[in-house]
Amino acid sequence: MSQDIQILKSLIIIIMQITNNYIEANKERFLEELFGLIRIPSISSESAHKPDMIRCAEYWRDAIMAAGADKAEVMPTEGNPIVYGEKIIDPKLPTVLVYGHYDVMPVDPIDQWHTDPFEPVIKDGKIWARGADDDKGQSFMHAKAFETMVKTNTLPCNVKFMLEGEEEIGSGSLSKWVVEYKDLVKADVILVSDTSMIATDVPSITTGLRGLAYWEIEVTGPNADLHSGLFGGSVANPLNTLCEMIAKCMDENNHITIPHFYDDVVTCSRRERQLLNMAPYDEKSYKAGLGVKALRGEKGYTKIERVGIRPTFDLCGMWGGYTGEGSKTVLPSKAYAKLSCRLVPNQDHEKIAVLVKKYLEKNAPKYVTVKVTPLHGGQAYGCPIDLPAYKAAEAAYMDTYGKLPIPMRSGGSIPIISTFEKVLGIKSILMGFGLGEDAIHSPNENYRLDHFYKGIETIIAFYQHFAKGGELA
Amino acid sequence: MSQDIQILKSLIIIIMQITNNYIEANKERFLEELFGLIRIPSISSESAHKPDMIRCAEYWRDAIMAAGADKAEVMPTEGNPIVYGEKIIDPKLPTVLVYGHYDVMPVDPIDQWHTDPFEPVIKDGKIWARGADDDKGQSFMHAKAFETMVKTNTLPCNVKFMLEGEEEIGSGSLSKWVVEYKDLVKADVILVSDTSMIATDVPSITTGLRGLAYWEIEVTGPNADLHSGLFGGSVANPLNTLCEMIAKCMDENNHITIPHFYDDVVTCSRRERQLLNMAPYDEKSYKAGLGVKALRGEKGYTKIERVGIRPTFDLCGMWGGYTGEGSKTVLPSKAYAKLSCRLVPNQDHEKIAVLVKKYLEKNAPKYVTVKVTPLHGGQAYGCPIDLPAYKAAEAAYMDTYGKLPIPMRSGGSIPIISTFEKVLGIKSILMGFGLGEDAIHSPNENYRLDHFYKGIETIIAFYQHFAKGGELA
Repeated sequence: MSQDIQILKSLIIIIMQITNNYIEANKERFLEELFGLIRIPSISSESAHKPDMIRCAEYWRDAIMAAGADKAEVMPTEGNPIVYGEKIIDPKLPTVLVYGHYDVMPVDPIDQWHTDPFEPVIKDGKIWARGADDDKGQSFMHAKAFETMVKTNTLPCNVKFMLEGEEEIGSGSLSKWVVEYKDLVKADVILVSDTSMIATDVPSITTGLRGLAYWEIEVTGPNADLHSGLFGGSVANPLNTLCEMIAKCMDENNHITIPHFYDDVVTCSRRERQLLNMAPYDEKSYKAGLGVKALRGEKGYTKIERVGIRPTFDLCGMWGGYTGEGSKTVLPSKAYAKLSCRLVPNQDHEKIAVLVKKYLEKNAPKYVTVKVTPLHGGQAYGCPIDLPAYKAAEAAYMDTYGKLPIPMRSGGSIPIISTFEKVLGIKSILMGFGLGEDAIHSPNENYRLDHFYKGIETIIAFYQHFAKGGELA
Repeated sequence: MSQDIQILKSLIIIIMQITNNYIEANKERFLEELFGLIRIPSISSESAHKPDMIRCAEYWRDAIMAAGADKAEVMPTEGNPIVYGEKIIDPKLPTVLVYGHYDVMPVDPIDQWHTDPFEPVIKDGKIWARGADDDKGQSFMHAKAFETMVKTNTLPCNVKFMLEGEEEIGSGSLSKWVVEYKDLVKADVILVSDTSMIATDVPSITTGLRGLAYWEIEVTGPNADLHSGLFGGSVANPLNTLCEMIAKCMDENNHITIPHFYDDVVTCSRRERQLLNMAPYDEKSYKAGLGVKALRGEKGYTKIERVGIRPTFDLCGMWGGYTGEGSKTVLPSKAYAKLSCRLVPNQDHEKIAVLVKKYLEKNAPKYVTVKVTPLHGGQAYGCPIDLPAYKAAEAAYMDTYGKLPIPMRSGGSIPIISTFEKVLGIKSILMGFGLGEDAIHSPNENYRLDHFYKGIETIIAFYQHFAKGGELA
């Protein structure tokens, strides 16, 4: 380690002591302010809460201003407003763009809540309320980290805030807004806390999200349902045929057989695979939880890799013919399926949508007619673990947790993250402090108090390392 | 040809001249009597018609007595009564058991009928009414053939009549009755007119009916519907797995791959296959009618053989996961299918039910649980074309049509015919005089007048040949 780096590291330790003192002195107020945010029932999917969305956006604007921003405003959209705020300490310094959302999920079934979802209570070291984790609790850590740095004169770079009120309903307005205001939100990296970490003592950073392509398949055999006795054996059964078509798409190693399907999949580095597999995983309890005797997945990959870095080919639904009680002998005219493929970084969902459609239609046996309709799609997202911003995040967790965070590829999708990359050309660092057990989207959502405060500390540490180029890890 | 046979043939020609004269002299009355039968709305599936069922059975009893039977009676069952009648001219002579049914299908949709379904009219050389063909018109030919032979002293053997009123609702009562009265109905052959012939100038005899086995398959993967992103790739999808299981049951030649499935299939003789394929068939118009570009069927067999003498493996229904509008990303817990196999003579439906169940359950991949429930079954029926009674029927058609009838294997099932064989140990000869265009079970059912009279003649000819051992063909 060079002397310079030694000095910088010591400096960061001193900064952390100062900021920790500030957090300690203000911890009750931080919580009270978060509770104020939580008390606004900003359910984006229910139109009755429209006024609450505006109140919630204004609350955020005021919080950012109070924390020390140069400016903050509530910007209207066709849907719910977007809150934008910034503090530019020096245009030459790098800029962090914080993204979060102030809308929450509905609270049904309300009778399963132990307490009022919009009146937060502290119990067993946790905040219990809708939005406690997702995403009010997690996003508000950024406001308080920002305040702490401003008030202690330790903010090392520029900060921009961008908060939307439609994340739970598809981010429709923000997808357009970010195109219109891409100069306004120009930054070097996006910082997001809206995901989970592996366990309270196992910090992790989500480095990948899978994309999605989704189709409906219609197979037509004869032009009407037929008597299975009089015609069975002489005409193709569209259900049997659809089964065969689906079966052919995967080989005995559970590898997808559609030509060129894997062409754009970027092979994950050996180092990243090693790190991914450091996540704790117990096959026995995983199987027990699912109630299965055996797992099924692509040969040559671990369970963590199968859901993280490999694409899938899954039927989400299938139907055709007689589906009622008892028996009815019919040779159906039509068979249908809903097919989805989870995609991985660098696979373009639109390209895959066309590839699979063409493959299924062109390779259909000539005794049926096959129509494949792409229904829905989303781009995958991947963050390289050698990106300076990622290294800054790693260093931050080392400072606060004393452990290297595990890179985690989530099997799910957050489409707006891919949109940010496409429109703004920058990567997002997904520093999530939630836990799987936080019951987001369910009754009795909760968020650990120690995660809230340690999150603020880790975010502050990130800024310090990021401003130094992330080279202190 | 021996001199004896020459004499017997001449004798039959003379008998036919006598009986034809009787038919000609009584043809209007025959029709009026049939109309009386048709006018009774004996719809077995509608309980409001219960009194009509009894009236109809009594009408038949009286008709058999008037035709010259020794006795005839209406025998009650738990359901609709069975009409039994007989004329035993000599216990040492062979006995023909005539089977038919006096119940008819409902008349809905009534507004599509051009005339009152229970007031028969003659138009374009056809009788238009419910039951005109199925089975009042066809079964009543037997009463009039019987009368003709009795009145002209040409009845060469004993005759028994057995008419049920539940054929359209599953023959429940007769299935039990025939066990109880199997001594009463003891005979050498059963004669039935309740099927169709190929065309008005192409006589045919139905020599086979396919059996049926029917199952519901339940495939369970994980114990709950899962998020297809978070779990996709790491756990078996029951829909994909069910598709693969079904696909494996048939090979590229459309041959069923389940071990021992074909074990009991009796190979059809080369001569019968040749005769079967004499039935007119035009692939181009068959495909056009079904709206398909190509057919699919077992390699090595013609279309007629595929539906007649070969078993099938057809999904009648399949369902699982999300089947609504648009897209929902779910990895379903369950997948279901309704599977049916049409069976051919000598395949036992109960044996096949167990065979397929065991195969699917035992060969299920260990990452799913498969439960197969047999739902329904019926025995196939086959009549050898070298059976003396069959040869007698052939000879009868030669006499009246001047053509050898084509043996026809129907793809469908008439379960009571297999029951007769099982309980009584005798074969049925299915001399059907209906046509595909007769709209049985539909509005505007009809039956050609010339078929009615030529049917009577052919039935009389059958008796003559049958009494001589069927060796004059």
